[in-house]
Amino acid sequence: MTFENEKKTYLGKMDKSKKGEIDPKIKSLLAAFNVLPEYYTTSSCSGRVYLWRGSGKKNELEWLKMSHDLIDLDFLKINTYNGLVWLRLEGMILHIACRNLDAANLLLEKVRQLYKKSGILSASNKIIVEIRGSEFMEMPLYNGEKLLFVGEGDWLVGLINQKLEKMWNGIEKLTREIAEANRN
Amino acid sequence: MTFENEKKTYLGKMDKSKKGEIDPKIKSLLAAFNVLPEYYTTSSCSGRVYLWRGSGKKNELEWLKMSHDLIDLDFLKINTYNGLVWLRLEGMILHIACRNLDAANLLLEKVRQLYKKSGILSASNKIIVEIRGSEFMEMPLYNGEKLLFVGEGDWLVGLINQKLEKMWNGIEKLTREIAEANRN
Repeated sequence: MTFENEKKTYLGKMDKSKKGEIDPKIKSLLAAFNVLPEYYTTSSCSGRVYLWRGSGKKNELEWLKMSHDLIDLDFLKINTYNGLVWLRLEGMILHIACRNLDAANLLLEKVRQLYKKSGILSASNKIIVEIRGSEFMEMPLYNGEKLLFVGEGDWLVGLINQKLEKMWNGIEKLTREIAEANRN
Repeated sequence: MTFENEKKTYLGKMDKSKKGEIDPKIKSLLAAFNVLPEYYTTSSCSGRVYLWRGSGKKNELEWLKMSHDLIDLDFLKINTYNGLVWLRLEGMILHIACRNLDAANLLLEKVRQLYKKSGILSASNKIIVEIRGSEFMEMPLYNGEKLLFVGEGDWLVGLINQKLEKMWNGIEKLTREIAEANRN
């Protein structure tokens, strides 16, 4: 299958996905990439914060809360106390299929200035570039019934929301840069 | 310059580095890669935990404490209280120059089972694969003079040390696998 056909097939499938499945905060960025003939996006997350419990392995992870938007103090409260509960914040993550290795290198060179944790995920069958934000938090929040964090009122909530907003500003900045590079 | 010459030059420079600069915990892994004709290691960290203050940008980071080994309760204590102090734990990170893209893909395929966050950092001039551990912590520890974490005695110390040991076990496992793949 040619790259053009793969792209058509892939983006066609995406259009059929449940409405609202793609976060509005990252839609413009996806569009900015998908108008470029050398690239198409295969998966994305605009950043998120969640409470989790388990071994840490993906299939042994219990998600207690999850937000892709600003949170309030309620978000940090849980109903069932059992073992160790972690708070995790993850930055933007975006996978982009590239027509060839040159296109991947060009993209990496461009985005590394803003997202230095980016790299090529695979270069064998499909060539996929991963753009990954640097924002991250991972902290133990409850041990059994015990809340492990002390802070003034919703201080931690403010800290988390600050990081979320920083991520979204980063997405807007990258969107502008990609759109601009395309115009030139 | 041929790959062989680059490798010779690079590893020669490494030998001249200050004694003890390479963490003993990762030396066997580096050796396991460097005997392979397709690869050589360019930089590494066996994992570390540190306290930091600043904006989060690399050049605006003040390191208050740093350990590549197990820590004790003293490690979490600071002398100067000023603004927000974070605790960060980072997993193993290893950069490997590969002779060509096939060698990079082969390596990625192998290590992704153990280190799923691995990828190709650059594929233009040099081909560098990054192997990156998944272990991570990033939590606010002090706000001014206020310790933000409450836990029984050195509970947090135990949690951190557990993660460090898990990383080192991972390094040993990868070392065995690379050495074994070489024998077959």
